[in-house]
Amino acid sequence: MKNEKLLQQIDFIREIDKIKYIQRKTKLFNSDRRENDAEHSWHLAMMAMVLHEHSDDPVDLLKVIKMVLIHDIVEIDAGDTFIYDQHKNHDNTDEEMKGAERIFGLLPEAQAKEMMELWKEFEAGHSNEAKFAKSMDRLEPLLQNVSNNGGTWKEFGVKYQAVYNKKKVIEQGSNSLWEYAEELLDKSVERGILKK
Amino acid sequence: MKNEKLLQQIDFIREIDKIKYIQRKTKLFNSDRRENDAEHSWHLAMMAMVLHEHSDDPVDLLKVIKMVLIHDIVEIDAGDTFIYDQHKNHDNTDEEMKGAERIFGLLPEAQAKEMMELWKEFEAGHSNEAKFAKSMDRLEPLLQNVSNNGGTWKEFGVKYQAVYNKKKVIEQGSNSLWEYAEELLDKSVERGILKK
Repeated sequence: MKNEKLLQQIDFIREIDKIKYIQRKTKLFNSDRRENDAEHSWHLAMMAMVLHEHSDDPVDLLKVIKMVLIHDIVEIDAGDTFIYDQHKNHDNTDEEMKGAERIFGLLPEAQAKEMMELWKEFEAGHSNEAKFAKSMDRLEPLLQNVSNNGGTWKEFGVKYQAVYNKKKVIEQGSNSLWEYAEELLDKSVERGILKK
Repeated sequence: MKNEKLLQQIDFIREIDKIKYIQRKTKLFNSDRRENDAEHSWHLAMMAMVLHEHSDDPVDLLKVIKMVLIHDIVEIDAGDTFIYDQHKNHDNTDEEMKGAERIFGLLPEAQAKEMMELWKEFEAGHSNEAKFAKSMDRLEPLLQNVSNNGGTWKEFGVKYQAVYNKKKVIEQGSNSLWEYAEELLDKSVERGILKK
């Protein structure tokens, strides 16, 4: 093969297959089966596609979709950290940074740089696209836990205030989605599947 | 809730979770586990993102990504048909059309229409975006079968010429990817994992 660049791209495509083995704590809708990172990322991309009109600020949809598609690739090396884990910081660990450098680094230089910047921008959460992408990332497991009668909230004894604090990130991307999310949280308390 | 449109969108988001249960015949890279449609669709979107420079014609990347993200949603109702199935046509069955109408029809009207048109355009395979999206759809399982010492080719006794005919679709999207695919097929014959 003369095309060295293509071979680098294929190596990356092979490597990221491993994301399909990274299990999240949250389970599929109405299900006992835990979701993996590939399924989760696909679902967030679909949500961005369907919900982007609810973003408070204008967003470049392609950029949002790219962000959610790649945001968990670092977990191939760093593993998934449960968002309510008391002992380990969920975001921006050294392991994640090393994972990003190794995995995105398989790509040709310009693409590696683009991926790294997209991932860092998502993690920082400042741009319109990052804020909206993070809204999607917080909304999906909320919908799943509601459909699973409390899901991981019940399984791990997570209380209303802790959930509320994490979910409030949705507000930074979309007021209308946050309003909807708050209603779901209130109804979950009423139903007894989320404890105050 | 006042926002009827948002509730329709959320219904759709819940419904498409079922794609995570649709098993393909092809297995993950170096693996014994079959891939599901959500994982497959995520991988195609990543491939489009990384490989789009190899498209022979200019493509709107967002449109390609949308196409590959949604292309198998109809299988929630119609199921996955093995591409080398002798008895059932792989494409455009009545069941798939009914599935598309039901599932995309959960969305607000304008979005339902957009999804339906994207899916039909993909299936028709005439536009630049559809041709490139189809290249991705044929390339991923080729890479997987090569990594699995023949994978479904061996499992179901599929011969070189049948594989070649299906994979030739890649050429319509990208000559350089087709050149690479042909090399992989030739090497697979040499290795004895694909029979002439």
